[in-house]
Amino acid sequence: MSLLVVGSVALDTVQTPFGEVADAIGGSAVFFSCAACLLNPVQVVGVIGDDYPVKALESFASRGVDLEGVERASGESFRWKGKYSYDLQNRETLETRLGVFAQFQPKIPARYRKAEWVFLGNIDPELQLSVLDQIKRPRLVACDTMNYWIHGKRDVLLELLRHIDVLMVNDAEARELSGDWNIYRAARWILERGPTRVVIKQGVYGAVLVEPGNRIFYVPAYPLEDVFDPTGAGDAFAGGFMGHLARSGDLSPANLRRAMVFGATMGSFAVEDFSINRFAKIGPAEVTARARAFFELVHFDTGTEHFAHPQS
Amino acid sequence: MSLLVVGSVALDTVQTPFGEVADAIGGSAVFFSCAACLLNPVQVVGVIGDDYPVKALESFASRGVDLEGVERASGESFRWKGKYSYDLQNRETLETRLGVFAQFQPKIPARYRKAEWVFLGNIDPELQLSVLDQIKRPRLVACDTMNYWIHGKRDVLLELLRHIDVLMVNDAEARELSGDWNIYRAARWILERGPTRVVIKQGVYGAVLVEPGNRIFYVPAYPLEDVFDPTGAGDAFAGGFMGHLARSGDLSPANLRRAMVFGATMGSFAVEDFSINRFAKIGPAEVTARARAFFELVHFDTGTEHFAHPQS
Repeated sequence: MSLLVVGSVALDTVQTPFGEVADAIGGSAVFFSCAACLLNPVQVVGVIGDDYPVKALESFASRGVDLEGVERASGESFRWKGKYSYDLQNRETLETRLGVFAQFQPKIPARYRKAEWVFLGNIDPELQLSVLDQIKRPRLVACDTMNYWIHGKRDVLLELLRHIDVLMVNDAEARELSGDWNIYRAARWILERGPTRVVIKQGVYGAVLVEPGNRIFYVPAYPLEDVFDPTGAGDAFAGGFMGHLARSGDLSPANLRRAMVFGATMGSFAVEDFSINRFAKIGPAEVTARARAFFELVHFDTGTEHFAHPQS
Repeated sequence: MSLLVVGSVALDTVQTPFGEVADAIGGSAVFFSCAACLLNPVQVVGVIGDDYPVKALESFASRGVDLEGVERASGESFRWKGKYSYDLQNRETLETRLGVFAQFQPKIPARYRKAEWVFLGNIDPELQLSVLDQIKRPRLVACDTMNYWIHGKRDVLLELLRHIDVLMVNDAEARELSGDWNIYRAARWILERGPTRVVIKQGVYGAVLVEPGNRIFYVPAYPLEDVFDPTGAGDAFAGGFMGHLARSGDLSPANLRRAMVFGATMGSFAVEDFSINRFAKIGPAEVTARARAFFELVHFDTGTEHFAHPQS
């Protein structure tokens, strides 16, 4: 089924303890697409400048990433430069140059407007709302945001929450948005403001899905001995999550859990190399194998007396 | 089967954002015992001064905590005073008064020496080794330690590792011991030095069991909206883990996973109130119910085409 992402298409310069990469393709829409396309075709809306290395994206076009919604504007592409700490747990933004992204006004091509599954990457919540105005009756809208908007455009963001189904943020964002340091209370606060599900990403610790009625599902991060570059992991997670929902067309609680597992699977691939490089090297077999490995990672057998009701 | 713990019996003064408690009973052996006794009787070896409120422990004596190995010495009991940050993620030690604990030389009573399941709480690794010299052929020895010993008695600690089966530490301790920030590489480093299993506790994020051959099991922390006092959670985890192994007598991989779940269950009870107060209010039914809830927290169904081998 049709899956649409609106977000940034960027050039990232990233320093990690293991090396550095300059002007590598990135951005929320790019990481999302490179992950999601392994599960379902993706339509992308974004903007690039006339300096963007379009060819680097082309391998993903052949994998089902539809780039016709990526506008080409005159000027410099969005650039982000960041540096990670020795343990990859913290990063510092060294430079942000918005370029053509500063004037970005998402225009959804006519044939994208019937998209049933929509992911709004981390952009100005006013633009996220404008996307929803242009599309017709999606089955599910998921949305990311960041501290910059939580503080700078709080009212618009709260309005947006009334129109989306899934808010997908990291733990720091959930805390800042709700004003509550406990992520389960934060999730409940968010659920009271519109979304029917909240996904809180916790980096190397995994991610949690919270639904009304205090229904909670936890998926750990895939255990990796070598993490290269965390950039884009959250967007790749969203790509796995939404890609699985789009391909299955199933919003049952059981399938949302599977979507979380495919999210965690894609997040784990994203961090294994710089930029989108890891996704260029894997296919459906690697994705399925890793998703299956999550089962063994968390499964335990309750078929013993020690898990039985005392009265039974 | 017989379960022995050797560790501290302390009086804790704890400040959290939610209140303060003064001279409350605590210490590694106490938290361990109050958790473990819900699953299996426990024999305790430790030391208290003549100021210790022995009566506060007595309710647990009636629950199967054998306190005859707790030596009464002349002087002040071990006291710890600490303060937690607003989000309970960090704590500062305000005061440590060793009292009679400074001269503690564990003496294992004759009838404890055949204990099959042994937990060495966080004490000087020389004393931990002296405990092993006094007991006969235990089936499994698990051991905790802390940064103080990792830096101050590294050689003794490395010697101890050759004589234990399970090292149970938190992520910071695993990193400091191994010199590696990646917890899976840290676990492998530890496994190469003696233990056949490593349990790495990650606080609010859960805990991971690593066995040779890169076999990994992850149990999240139980989702709690109200966490009161993290003191003792790690020792309660150990109590649940060892208590389940002792009552089942089963060291199969499947049962070790269940032991992790009972560990996480007990850790979650520990943080719901100050001191050991929560354990005074629960029985086997509450324990079983919460342990069972972990299944729903992590379970997902792989019985769909999306988890099938591509060739199948």
